[in-house]
Amino acid sequence: MNLTILGCYSATPRTLNNTTSQVLEINNHMFLIDCGEGTQVELRRHKIKFNRIKHIFISHLHGDHFFGLVGLISTFRLLTRETDLHIYGPKGIKEIVTLQMKLADSWTNYNLYFHELTSKKTELIFEDDKVEVHTIPLNHRVYTNGYLFKEKEGPRKLQKYLAEDANINTAYYRKLTQGFDVENEDGVLIKNESVTKPGEKPKSYAFCSDTMYKEDIVPIIRNTDVLYHESTFLDQHAHIAVKTKHATAKEAANIAKQANVGTLILGHYSTRYGSIEPFKTEAEDVFDKVQLAEDGKVFCF
Amino acid sequence: MNLTILGCYSATPRTLNNTTSQVLEINNHMFLIDCGEGTQVELRRHKIKFNRIKHIFISHLHGDHFFGLVGLISTFRLLTRETDLHIYGPKGIKEIVTLQMKLADSWTNYNLYFHELTSKKTELIFEDDKVEVHTIPLNHRVYTNGYLFKEKEGPRKLQKYLAEDANINTAYYRKLTQGFDVENEDGVLIKNESVTKPGEKPKSYAFCSDTMYKEDIVPIIRNTDVLYHESTFLDQHAHIAVKTKHATAKEAANIAKQANVGTLILGHYSTRYGSIEPFKTEAEDVFDKVQLAEDGKVFCF
Repeated sequence: MNLTILGCYSATPRTLNNTTSQVLEINNHMFLIDCGEGTQVELRRHKIKFNRIKHIFISHLHGDHFFGLVGLISTFRLLTRETDLHIYGPKGIKEIVTLQMKLADSWTNYNLYFHELTSKKTELIFEDDKVEVHTIPLNHRVYTNGYLFKEKEGPRKLQKYLAEDANINTAYYRKLTQGFDVENEDGVLIKNESVTKPGEKPKSYAFCSDTMYKEDIVPIIRNTDVLYHESTFLDQHAHIAVKTKHATAKEAANIAKQANVGTLILGHYSTRYGSIEPFKTEAEDVFDKVQLAEDGKVFCF
Repeated sequence: MNLTILGCYSATPRTLNNTTSQVLEINNHMFLIDCGEGTQVELRRHKIKFNRIKHIFISHLHGDHFFGLVGLISTFRLLTRETDLHIYGPKGIKEIVTLQMKLADSWTNYNLYFHELTSKKTELIFEDDKVEVHTIPLNHRVYTNGYLFKEKEGPRKLQKYLAEDANINTAYYRKLTQGFDVENEDGVLIKNESVTKPGEKPKSYAFCSDTMYKEDIVPIIRNTDVLYHESTFLDQHAHIAVKTKHATAKEAANIAKQANVGTLILGHYSTRYGSIEPFKTEAEDVFDKVQLAEDGKVFCF
């Protein structure tokens, strides 16, 4: 599971800071999460193949999280993309994109599917045999969702020497990795656990931005391997966080602690601060596995 | 008159090429012409003060000419701008911007005026005591206008020693610079031309992008000091130019020659070419005062 931070600052793009966008590579999927202005250029800069992106998840309709979306969709069209594209985001996102397509007389030549979200409860919005994606209802100034990406249990690992000792026909090996008990050549039922061991532990990633401190999300993201939680402000500006419905680094750490996550990544920093190091320091007072998102940084888990 | 090219490539922004946007500084105005994705970052990079931009002219509603507009308007709001902002562009531009504001629940705290254009004839769309701006109807796949920016005749220059010799009271000097004849201290009418000379020659700039070859624009832009004319293609791709309603470098030069402009600036290059030098070479076969737009280049006239 790799996470590439294309941008992790709040409000407006600047010469050295991009607004929110990240690419999550999980079980061979490339999920684009949020799409601030300039995202398409950052994708090029990181040599991420456009065709590998088939699903884009938009948290909310503030510009720093989606102003790059229509440009990306348009560029895909100009590059004669044929691969389907699915967009998940708040109701209204389809109208914004299609209005601009209509006025430009430029409809996509690939299939473009919008999955508009309106529920205030967590929902399963994508599922295949490898991954599932759930919404995480957040509390911001407009309707906002975080997203929880979970790998599914992979195949069990066959312990070949044990299967041979148990005199199992190789034709059954695939069934064993799928978790079934099988009969051996002597007609004896062999318990799956006696010849296989669990596959790799499925990984999970939760993206929570933008939101004020919201304890309700804890049960949804409990035991997640990696949590990206916004921390727009330091504690000294906690009053602005409340007013603008954002979170502080300490609050993000509090959520991480309660949810018992593996690693907390902080991001969505206000550009008012000279350095982002104090975000880490403040969060570490509460929770000890803290990392800082930075534009261009790649996290491997 | 200074022209800063923020971007001059067609279709999609890339790591090293920006789409169309330029800033024209003319008679103390800062006019932003087109606003491709990433324009706000280029404005920052060139240290152009956001508050000096009071008028934005959008040629047409293809993304490479306006996808940066909503982000710029939004950033102005976040920076608590108070200065009025006027947007000129095709009908539909207001709906695109206001829909996104509505869904983000983020209305500007400054006055935002839309001047939507629908006419297929040239129109005077802005005028004050220093400058006037006219549309230049173009021929592209969607409704498109170029823009002609013309300085107004400035004050005449008083030739002080002649005015003194003519025994004119200094109280009349301002009237003289305004072009009036005045009576001298002896009651004799003094002809304005005998004591003043013309002020600086007013300058003019015509922006024509995107368009296919269109001779009708020649009378509108005749004798313009500087013409920026799109040249998406070289002659070898003239057939694609016709199909996509763009122009070649040679065609741009042809227009420049017929209109007897002072300088032709080429731009809006397709990124298919390894070098832009051939655009100059091809245009110079027809017209000899050719310059190449380049991202970041500043022209002073």
